[in-house]
Amino acid sequence: MWVVPEAEIAGLMTPEAAFEAVEAVFAAMARGDARNFPVVREALGHEDALYGFKGGFDASRLTLGLKAGGYWPNNGTRGLINHQSTVFLFDPDTGRVSAAVGGNLLTALRTAAASAVSIKYLAPQGARVLGMIGAGHQSAFQMRAAVRFGSFEKVIGWNPHPEMLTRLADTATDLGLPFEAVDLPQLGAEADVIISITSAFSPLLLDAHVKGPTHIAAMGTDTKGKQELDPALVARARLFTDEVAQSVSIGEFQHAAGQKTISADDITAIGRVIIGNHPGRGDADITIFDGTGVGLQDLAVAAAVVDLAKEQGKAVEVAI
Amino acid sequence: MWVVPEAEIAGLMTPEAAFEAVEAVFAAMARGDARNFPVVREALGHEDALYGFKGGFDASRLTLGLKAGGYWPNNGTRGLINHQSTVFLFDPDTGRVSAAVGGNLLTALRTAAASAVSIKYLAPQGARVLGMIGAGHQSAFQMRAAVRFGSFEKVIGWNPHPEMLTRLADTATDLGLPFEAVDLPQLGAEADVIISITSAFSPLLLDAHVKGPTHIAAMGTDTKGKQELDPALVARARLFTDEVAQSVSIGEFQHAAGQKTISADDITAIGRVIIGNHPGRGDADITIFDGTGVGLQDLAVAAAVVDLAKEQGKAVEVAI
Repeated sequence: MWVVPEAEIAGLMTPEAAFEAVEAVFAAMARGDARNFPVVREALGHEDALYGFKGGFDASRLTLGLKAGGYWPNNGTRGLINHQSTVFLFDPDTGRVSAAVGGNLLTALRTAAASAVSIKYLAPQGARVLGMIGAGHQSAFQMRAAVRFGSFEKVIGWNPHPEMLTRLADTATDLGLPFEAVDLPQLGAEADVIISITSAFSPLLLDAHVKGPTHIAAMGTDTKGKQELDPALVARARLFTDEVAQSVSIGEFQHAAGQKTISADDITAIGRVIIGNHPGRGDADITIFDGTGVGLQDLAVAAAVVDLAKEQGKAVEVAI
Repeated sequence: MWVVPEAEIAGLMTPEAAFEAVEAVFAAMARGDARNFPVVREALGHEDALYGFKGGFDASRLTLGLKAGGYWPNNGTRGLINHQSTVFLFDPDTGRVSAAVGGNLLTALRTAAASAVSIKYLAPQGARVLGMIGAGHQSAFQMRAAVRFGSFEKVIGWNPHPEMLTRLADTATDLGLPFEAVDLPQLGAEADVIISITSAFSPLLLDAHVKGPTHIAAMGTDTKGKQELDPALVARARLFTDEVAQSVSIGEFQHAAGQKTISADDITAIGRVIIGNHPGRGDADITIFDGTGVGLQDLAVAAAVVDLAKEQGKAVEVAI
């Protein structure tokens, strides 16, 4: 078994490798070559923790395994981050475990890669202004991936707690782009691409805020009850996601689907656009990508980082 | 993360440690302190493999994690055994992975420990003759555990392929007990305790074969369609299992439950007997324990072997 520790991931994984891995696995899902297994997610009744497993198999790249871990809200008092996970890969020819990989940074990178993939395929032509909603830990990863794979000239941003906007400002400066703090109506009017990455439980971005053409990557909603977008905005947009069934159950589209203003048939798996099976944006004024997060993304980036770690002599081999 | 490789397990794990771990976790389940998570089990469409995860949490011993792996029927051609699994333990206080343990031998030991626990609590007084149905890989583990924790003076056995009975004869000799190959009517008439451990898909032991008082540990049925016992035998016995819901869905009791001659209400979790919440055998002529196999058993024996490996300096610590 190869072990790649959390501390090595930052020095190994590149945004390009994450982007390529996530784009490829979305394509494999659309071709029917890769599928996610049922998600296990359990409230432990201990430390208020949520714990579970997201597994899958990509037959095209022979990637098999799972991410295990969850959310430990009291970790901060221990000097640890709240989201803790580990990815385990298995040899699909024999069933033997082949790798254990720290999953914390990889989770942020694969989530950022997913919105960047959606921007590549769905952003309006000539998109220049990136709007960021949310300024938490993951927002910087999101901005970095979007800027690297887009052609943005300016970043504007909003956060429920304005004092946190320094993260967005600092990240934009680091990327050589001007940053402006704005309110949501200005953000919705000026941004060509919007990434929302919050833990909100009620709509932040309203239908009236958004003047198209706009692409929105809604990346924050991964649980029943969470919500970032006005369902009326969802109802008038062209809809895409990583996995349709998950988007209407625990993703952003759960709310419009619950109100019956959309159905699963109105939502396209982004992989279909990647493989040329769906035109993507077409004549749509507004597109939305609901990034719910699937196990195959975790496996894809973990497999990529194991390859990089082996090449660079940073993977540790342990008998098991 | 502590790693305990498969090759070390045989030298570390004792039948006593496996018995104690499984007995304790059955008790914790009955007290409501431990529970299994939903099982994921998927046909991969690759190498005819079945793959999945069995997880759980025991709050009384703070054991959290999962067994991942499955069944690779073509492994024999590669010189590997067909069942391959690995157990991963997590720190329930933080969500960080704490151990990775080879799960192949542990699976055999925890299965044998479960039937031995059932014999301790349910065998008729003065049981002296052990009847074995099945002579595959796991049968030797079953016999060893039963003999160690019972007071047997003789072993009798039957197998659909008689040429394999040498495994039972050799194991009994090794344990200092006489062995006799018998037919099923003789086995059912003479054995005080019967362990069935086959991959059968139709009844082997018939109602007419069994003259009580007898305790039967049915250990082979862990999938829809598998079956070792005549449903009429099940219908007239007092019924016990590791997990009631699993016994009527994928365990031996699925068949009588499907015929409506029994219901889930007729089945007692063995843990209730262990904690003194149910009298167990009582005045029953025939008792049956349906050992379906739950993830908590795997976690319990893995936690025990990690403790032993650390004490003996045989666990390898790896940064992750």
